[in-house]
Amino acid sequence: MLHDQTFLRTPGPTPIPQRVTHAMNQPMIGHRSKSFAQLFKDTSTRLKPIFGTDQPVYVLTSSGTGALETAVDNVTSKGDKVIVVVAGAFGDRFASICEKHELSTVRLDVPWGESVNQDLLTATLREHQDATAVLVTYNETSTGVLQPIDEIAELVQTHTNALTVVDGVSCIGGVPAYMDRWDIDILVTGSQKAMMLPAGLAFVGVSKRAWERIQANGSSSFYFDLQQYDKQYENGMTPYTPAVSLIQGLQEVCAMLEEETLPEVYKRHEVMKNMTRAGIRALGLPLLTSDEDASPTVTSVKGAEDLDVDAFRNHVRDRFGLSLAGGQKQLKGQIFRIGHMGYCSPVDIITTLSMIEMGLVECGINIELGAGVKAAQEVLINDVPSTSK
Amino acid sequence: MLHDQTFLRTPGPTPIPQRVTHAMNQPMIGHRSKSFAQLFKDTSTRLKPIFGTDQPVYVLTSSGTGALETAVDNVTSKGDKVIVVVAGAFGDRFASICEKHELSTVRLDVPWGESVNQDLLTATLREHQDATAVLVTYNETSTGVLQPIDEIAELVQTHTNALTVVDGVSCIGGVPAYMDRWDIDILVTGSQKAMMLPAGLAFVGVSKRAWERIQANGSSSFYFDLQQYDKQYENGMTPYTPAVSLIQGLQEVCAMLEEETLPEVYKRHEVMKNMTRAGIRALGLPLLTSDEDASPTVTSVKGAEDLDVDAFRNHVRDRFGLSLAGGQKQLKGQIFRIGHMGYCSPVDIITTLSMIEMGLVECGINIELGAGVKAAQEVLINDVPSTSK
Repeated sequence: MLHDQTFLRTPGPTPIPQRVTHAMNQPMIGHRSKSFAQLFKDTSTRLKPIFGTDQPVYVLTSSGTGALETAVDNVTSKGDKVIVVVAGAFGDRFASICEKHELSTVRLDVPWGESVNQDLLTATLREHQDATAVLVTYNETSTGVLQPIDEIAELVQTHTNALTVVDGVSCIGGVPAYMDRWDIDILVTGSQKAMMLPAGLAFVGVSKRAWERIQANGSSSFYFDLQQYDKQYENGMTPYTPAVSLIQGLQEVCAMLEEETLPEVYKRHEVMKNMTRAGIRALGLPLLTSDEDASPTVTSVKGAEDLDVDAFRNHVRDRFGLSLAGGQKQLKGQIFRIGHMGYCSPVDIITTLSMIEMGLVECGINIELGAGVKAAQEVLINDVPSTSK
Repeated sequence: MLHDQTFLRTPGPTPIPQRVTHAMNQPMIGHRSKSFAQLFKDTSTRLKPIFGTDQPVYVLTSSGTGALETAVDNVTSKGDKVIVVVAGAFGDRFASICEKHELSTVRLDVPWGESVNQDLLTATLREHQDATAVLVTYNETSTGVLQPIDEIAELVQTHTNALTVVDGVSCIGGVPAYMDRWDIDILVTGSQKAMMLPAGLAFVGVSKRAWERIQANGSSSFYFDLQQYDKQYENGMTPYTPAVSLIQGLQEVCAMLEEETLPEVYKRHEVMKNMTRAGIRALGLPLLTSDEDASPTVTSVKGAEDLDVDAFRNHVRDRFGLSLAGGQKQLKGQIFRIGHMGYCSPVDIITTLSMIEMGLVECGINIELGAGVKAAQEVLINDVPSTSK
C-alpha cells in the first residue's frame, strides 16, 4: 500500500483540514498584541452559535479533562452534593473529578451502551433535591451514546435547583447545542473532536445562573479560575499564555462551519451515523447501541463471535493505515469504535467501511465484501438527494 | 514597507522555525497509538539533557503558569511554609499561586531589575528553616535578570531541608540547566520561549527527592496530578489528551538543538545578549540590569528622558512590524524589553537594533543612526571569530 497513507477514524483526535493547518502556519503573534485581541474576540464571538448561547464561551489551554475539572472546581465547593450520570468511561471520569474535589458524589450508573432511564433520573433528582449540580456526558465517547441532553436539563430544572453541567467534548460542533434554550449552565468541549483542531484547547460556555454560583464559590485553582478568564475576556485576552497557533486554526474552523452552515454540519453527522450503522448491520455485526441512543459522532460495534477485535484493529491499521478505537475499561476487547466527526464526509464512511470489510475477511470472518459499502451508499443517495439535474 | 513582514522580538512567544512548522503539519495521530508512544518516548528522552537531568521530564498541555501551579500543588500541602523569591512580575505570580493554595508564604522581595542578595537570602533561609520549599524564578522575564540558580540552590541545601522549585519558563533551552548537578528539585518551562514552539505545552523536571514529597503529599488537582503523569510515562503516554501537534513540533526542536549542540545554543544566547547590550549602550539608552545580572534571553531598556516607551513600541510595530514588549506592573511605561531567545540569531539582533535606531530618531530622540548596529557588529566579530580562511 501507499505506506504513509492514514485514515484517522478514532473518536478524537480527528483529521485536521488543510485550511486549518495553513491557518496554524501563520507567523506567531504576541498574546498581548492588538492582533491577538482581534483574533480572540473574533473567535470567541463565533463560538457562541456553536454552543447556542449569547453568554461568553471561555477558551482554556488544556485538554477537555482540564476544562471538566474547571467546571467542577468553579461551580462547587468541598462537601457539596452533586449527581453524576455515569454511562461510560467519561461519566466515570467526571465522577472521579468530583471525588477528587471532595464532593458528596451521587453516581447514577447507567448500563454502558444505553442512555439514562428518565424515570430513574427523576427518582434520583427527587431523592437528592439538595444537589447543587447535575453532571452529564452529552455524548459518551466510550459507548457511542448521545444522551437527550435537552430532556435531562428539563428534568433537572423541574425537580431541583441544581446547575446542569454538561461534558460535550466528543460532540459539540457536530450535533445541535442550545445552551440558552435548553437551560444548560456549563457546556464544555475540547478542540480535537468535532472542532477539527489538534488537541490543546478547551471551550467552556457558562450561563448567567452559573456565574452567580461561580462568584459565590471562587475556585481552588489558580490556572482554572474562571473569574480570571472573565476579567480578561472583554479585552480579547486570556489571563495566562494561550495556545496561539491553535486559536489561529480555530478561526478557520469557525469559517468552515459557517460556510457549511451549522444545520448542514449537523445533518452531515446524522447521515454519517446512518451510513455507518446501515453498513455495519449489512455485514451482520451487532451494534452496541439502539438507533434511538446512537451518537452522530461515534459508532460502537460488537465483534462477531469469532473476532478478536483488538487483533482486527491492529490488522486494519497495519494493512490500510486505518485507525479505529478499541473498547475502554469494561468494554476493553469487546467492541471497536468508528469515529465519524469533524473533518469527515459521507464518502469517507464508504472508504472506512470498505477497509473494515476487507479487514474482516482477512481476519477470517465470513462477510460479503461490498455489502456494507452498498448499504451505506443507499443511505447516502436516499438521505441526501442530488441537487444537480 | 512590506506590510505583512513581522519581527517578533518579545520575550515569548518567539518565532517558530519553518522546520518546526513542517513537523507540526504532519497528519494527526491518535494519542493512544504506537506511533504516538514512540514520539512521546523519544521527545521525553531528548528533553533530559536540556534540563540536565536523568530523571523524567513530564509534558503537560497547559501554559507555563499551569505547570508552576502543578509544581506548587504537588510538592506542598495547605499550611506548609514556603519561601518565594520575588524579583519581578513572575516571582509575584509564583507567590500568588502559593497564596491561592493557602500556603504560609514568606516573600523575599528583591528590587525589580536585580538578582537576589545572597546574604539576605541566607538570613531568610536561616530564619525559616522549617520551609518545605523555596521557589525561585531562574530568568525573571519582566526585568531581564538571570538569577544565579546554582548558587541559590546550594544555599537552600546548606541551610534548610526545603525543595528548590525553579520557574525556568523564559530561559530553559537558551541557558545552561543542570538539575541533577545543581540539586534542583523541580524545574519548569513552557514551549513558547527558548523552546521555539507555539504556546500550549509545559515541561516539568522532577528530582528523586521531590518524588518522595509528591508521593507523600498527593495533589489537590485531577488534571495536574503528577502521579497520574508518572503512571503513564513509561508507556509513552499522558493521562489526558495531549497537544499532539505541538509534541510533533517538539521532536524537531530537539533535533535542531542537538544539531547546533547545547553549548553552542547557550553561547549564541550569550552573544545575542552582549550584542544587544552593547548596541543599546552605544545609543546612550540606560539598561535596567547590571552586566552581571543580565539575562541571555531578554534585555530591558529604560527609555531616554524624553521618550514615551509605549508610544515608541507602537511606532516600531506600525512602521516596521517589530514587536517589542513593554514593562509589566510597577515597570509599566518605564521600560521596553527586547526578546532574544529561541529562533533568533546574532544577525536578527542587528536587524532589531537598526529598527530601534530608526524608531528612536522618528520619535524625536537624538541618537546617532548606525551606532548601535556598529557596536553589535563589533561584539559579533570579536566574540565569534570566523572559521573560514
